[in-house]
Amino acid sequence: MKLDRLLGLRFKETPSDCQIASHILMLRGGYIKNVGNGIFSLYPPAKRIAQKIERIIREEMDAIGGQEVMLPVAIPAALWKESGRWDAVGSELVRFKDRGGSDMVLGMTHEEAVVHLCRDTAQSYQNFPFMVYQIQTKFRDEPRARGGLIRVREFTMKDAYSFHTSFGDLAEFYEKCHAAYVNIFRRCGIGDDVVDVQADSGMMGGKIAHEFMLLAEIGEDSLAICGACDFRSNMEAAECITENAPCEDAPLTKISTPGIKTIEALCEFCTVSPARTCKAVLYQKNSTGEYVVIFIRGDLEVNETKLNNLLGGEAHPAADAAEAFPCGFIGPVGLKLPKGAVVLYDRSLRNAGELVTGACEEGYHYRGFNPDRDVPGIEYSEIAKIPEGGICPQCGKHSIRLVRGIEVGHIFQLGAKYTESMNMTYLDQNGKPQYPVMGCYGIGVGRLMASVCEARRDGYGPIWPMNIAPWQAQICALRSQDEEVAKTADKLYEDLQSAGVEVLYDDRKVSAGVMFSDADLLGVPVRVIVSPKTLQRGVAELKTRDKAIQKDLDISVVTQEIIALVKEMMNEGDQS
Amino acid sequence: MKLDRLLGLRFKETPSDCQIASHILMLRGGYIKNVGNGIFSLYPPAKRIAQKIERIIREEMDAIGGQEVMLPVAIPAALWKESGRWDAVGSELVRFKDRGGSDMVLGMTHEEAVVHLCRDTAQSYQNFPFMVYQIQTKFRDEPRARGGLIRVREFTMKDAYSFHTSFGDLAEFYEKCHAAYVNIFRRCGIGDDVVDVQADSGMMGGKIAHEFMLLAEIGEDSLAICGACDFRSNMEAAECITENAPCEDAPLTKISTPGIKTIEALCEFCTVSPARTCKAVLYQKNSTGEYVVIFIRGDLEVNETKLNNLLGGEAHPAADAAEAFPCGFIGPVGLKLPKGAVVLYDRSLRNAGELVTGACEEGYHYRGFNPDRDVPGIEYSEIAKIPEGGICPQCGKHSIRLVRGIEVGHIFQLGAKYTESMNMTYLDQNGKPQYPVMGCYGIGVGRLMASVCEARRDGYGPIWPMNIAPWQAQICALRSQDEEVAKTADKLYEDLQSAGVEVLYDDRKVSAGVMFSDADLLGVPVRVIVSPKTLQRGVAELKTRDKAIQKDLDISVVTQEIIALVKEMMNEGDQS
Repeated sequence: MKLDRLLGLRFKETPSDCQIASHILMLRGGYIKNVGNGIFSLYPPAKRIAQKIERIIREEMDAIGGQEVMLPVAIPAALWKESGRWDAVGSELVRFKDRGGSDMVLGMTHEEAVVHLCRDTAQSYQNFPFMVYQIQTKFRDEPRARGGLIRVREFTMKDAYSFHTSFGDLAEFYEKCHAAYVNIFRRCGIGDDVVDVQADSGMMGGKIAHEFMLLAEIGEDSLAICGACDFRSNMEAAECITENAPCEDAPLTKISTPGIKTIEALCEFCTVSPARTCKAVLYQKNSTGEYVVIFIRGDLEVNETKLNNLLGGEAHPAADAAEAFPCGFIGPVGLKLPKGAVVLYDRSLRNAGELVTGACEEGYHYRGFNPDRDVPGIEYSEIAKIPEGGICPQCGKHSIRLVRGIEVGHIFQLGAKYTESMNMTYLDQNGKPQYPVMGCYGIGVGRLMASVCEARRDGYGPIWPMNIAPWQAQICALRSQDEEVAKTADKLYEDLQSAGVEVLYDDRKVSAGVMFSDADLLGVPVRVIVSPKTLQRGVAELKTRDKAIQKDLDISVVTQEIIALVKEMMNEGDQS
Repeated sequence: MKLDRLLGLRFKETPSDCQIASHILMLRGGYIKNVGNGIFSLYPPAKRIAQKIERIIREEMDAIGGQEVMLPVAIPAALWKESGRWDAVGSELVRFKDRGGSDMVLGMTHEEAVVHLCRDTAQSYQNFPFMVYQIQTKFRDEPRARGGLIRVREFTMKDAYSFHTSFGDLAEFYEKCHAAYVNIFRRCGIGDDVVDVQADSGMMGGKIAHEFMLLAEIGEDSLAICGACDFRSNMEAAECITENAPCEDAPLTKISTPGIKTIEALCEFCTVSPARTCKAVLYQKNSTGEYVVIFIRGDLEVNETKLNNLLGGEAHPAADAAEAFPCGFIGPVGLKLPKGAVVLYDRSLRNAGELVTGACEEGYHYRGFNPDRDVPGIEYSEIAKIPEGGICPQCGKHSIRLVRGIEVGHIFQLGAKYTESMNMTYLDQNGKPQYPVMGCYGIGVGRLMASVCEARRDGYGPIWPMNIAPWQAQICALRSQDEEVAKTADKLYEDLQSAGVEVLYDDRKVSAGVMFSDADLLGVPVRVIVSPKTLQRGVAELKTRDKAIQKDLDISVVTQEIIALVKEMMNEGDQS
């Protein structure tokens, strides 16, 4: 490809409204164009990268027995009504009516469609296990699209679905798929930066789920990682274990705390630590607006994912509850609840005592609150976020670090949620109908591309790993009006192409500065510079985009050296 | 791939509601599954064929300088409002609102999106020409989805768009793309059955357009093909040239024709041929319901495409016009028109005379009608369908044959319709802004697959050409419980796979009848049969699906012979 024919502009200026490096670089490098909120077109370099990522994914899915299929983007709502998700999923699911008035959805995930595809074809236990996958466009009407290709509404996704006759068989395949995912991220060049963590299964159903997370400051997810053992979890899914210091059986005593409305102020006023307080956090159910009062130790925060799972629906922090509650002074004792309100107690209050908490009266708190003693029949739930320095649920040490990550893959053990609701059965050895159990396995192609860009870049542009780079080598012919330069570079271009190397050839009559900054933005791993100066020395200059190699190559050997280097870097990428 | 692991069932029964062979065979062979009206999922064999077709398309598009991009499926309506098609296109365009209340459409064609992608990047005449393409899912809310993958609502399409600084340059590239299309159909194995015809450009805009048509009885399109020259046109787009026999200047005479309401009855009653009558055909505009009265020679039919183009919008045959018109007796003389109604005269009435036509009075017609004389200021339009045996617009002979075809590709010279409406400009040599002109070029991948199935099949299943076959070779191991059979077939499977041959291996313990009928349905071009009988003879049996080859191969050479045959058939397919 001649660079002067390449569709897309490259520029220096940081586009407005961009916070994330990959977003900035992929706009500045002519990779993507924003079409609407969370909707992008891909220019040729991004399309080429996406195709290479897709090829790697296909190879890894095929290697574990995957069969590629194609499911529809526009799906009759009847299938989503069968599974119950037509009602259960919110406005991120696009619904429309077709010209005949039938309800339709845009597929944001394809459990329903894949069960529809498979339910008549796998009739005997002998047909199991099997896995199918597709690489297809999805639309998810995200409320907060952001960060270029990191969080979009329309995206290309590989989604795979496996079917099994037992949870044991599912677990076994799940491990295989887990290993294939590790291969995929390694081959895409970010193997060292991606960790797997336990995950919440959210609206998908099922119990066991893992996310693959690219560790990155700009990540939207918080991860709880143990420094002492191999425990790693999305903070959403991590159990929060707490200990309470031993305490006296102090009596419940009302104290005057005029104007003391925050935990900080309360702690200062009473000279206690936040862990010796019991605070109230107010939510409202999205569906009904009914209040949810959560009592939790003052040093901890509410984990909204756990809260939603507990409630079986979404809730949001209550914005203005002053009419319903004595805000700032809410406590478990003497609390009057508005109609429909629910009270939840976090497990952190168990075995706690000598707590300061609200007295449900403007200007008053209690000292000496002991939940087990003072709230008859109290039931505890697990609603707290695991904190930095918290207790590892696996090894029990105070060794939890919180870091941020970008989810680049997600795998789920779904169980029989969809096969039961959609009545997919097979006959077991005894001729009895059974529901198969399912796993599902997703990777967003565009997000993976942007994540590699996040992880592999410098201040000048992306540093694409050889295996997914838009081109393998770039020739920069400086001063191509010089006949010798043009002749040498043209020949190199031809020879490399003949040898099957994917070459981007820049022979524009532009300055070295423009040429190199464009090359940096395009991030091609191997660069060869031909100029009057290098030719005077009888050489071309070889530079890798990652700066690992920079040396002169004798013109007589340049073609074969580049071919060898590209091959070597391809192999390294596949095996590293 | 082992056949017993392959997802999808094969069966004998003809599914109900299927008229078309490809639809029947692709259901019976486990290629496709209907998800909803005009919406299909693809099982692995169909997905594999689709991918091979896509690879051929990519190679041919790349060979003429195409750059692959990716445009969105869900497109902000703002772009379609810019081009004017938000209003101009009917309910085949799916419209929906996103969660933020913005109007969106599902892309059924991508002129708007591609102009959006390119309009800032090609600023100088030096950036032209260029062509971009994508292979992407489209949704078109067809009123009459039918025939399996022949006419669907959701489909995978290759759509390409070229941009030029002159019509001359566009025409030149158009020819290149035309040639690339010829290559594509040839490489997909239907080169001999596809013809290109002049086409109507419909809602796309532009003047010059061609369709590539697979000649097939079940085709939805009628083609006008000259037996005497190389004129070929979609009937929709073909000019209808008529001659009228010389006539006397007979006076206009009212005659009593009680109960004579059809042209047939009228001709019999008056003993004239239909070509000596002037009939009225009634339509109504879709948008307003206003009547359109078309007067046309009695032996000709109305070409609705021409009518719609003439009206600048769609119209449908008037169902019940008895209140507005003296139906059966309508004629140009004395006609009273309801409000808003329009009258059109087809060119076939020019220079005609001595016609019989309605007298606008129940039970009466006129004889001796002469349009040029009796209708002051008459203006003629061209609204007639070219008839079988009609006059070729190119060579002038009465040599038009009407045949049927399936549209497998469509190319358009669009002109500046979209660049003007969406304000895409470049600076010409003189620094003056200009609108580039565009071409667009489409191929539906699924329809092409089904068309190949239509054209290449026998009573037992598809006969896939080697280049797009789901697998290249199939091993049928009959009586694989026989140790020698299993050993030989297993080894053959391994050896062929190692050599890079795509093998489907059937070692199920089923009868020869089941095994062969499944193989016929899967249509793999090369079949090798290993059984106790063949092994007794020291051979495996080679059969090609098209029955061209059937012979024994010594076990010692079977692997290399199959490898050679597959290679030969691949090359033939590429070059034929």
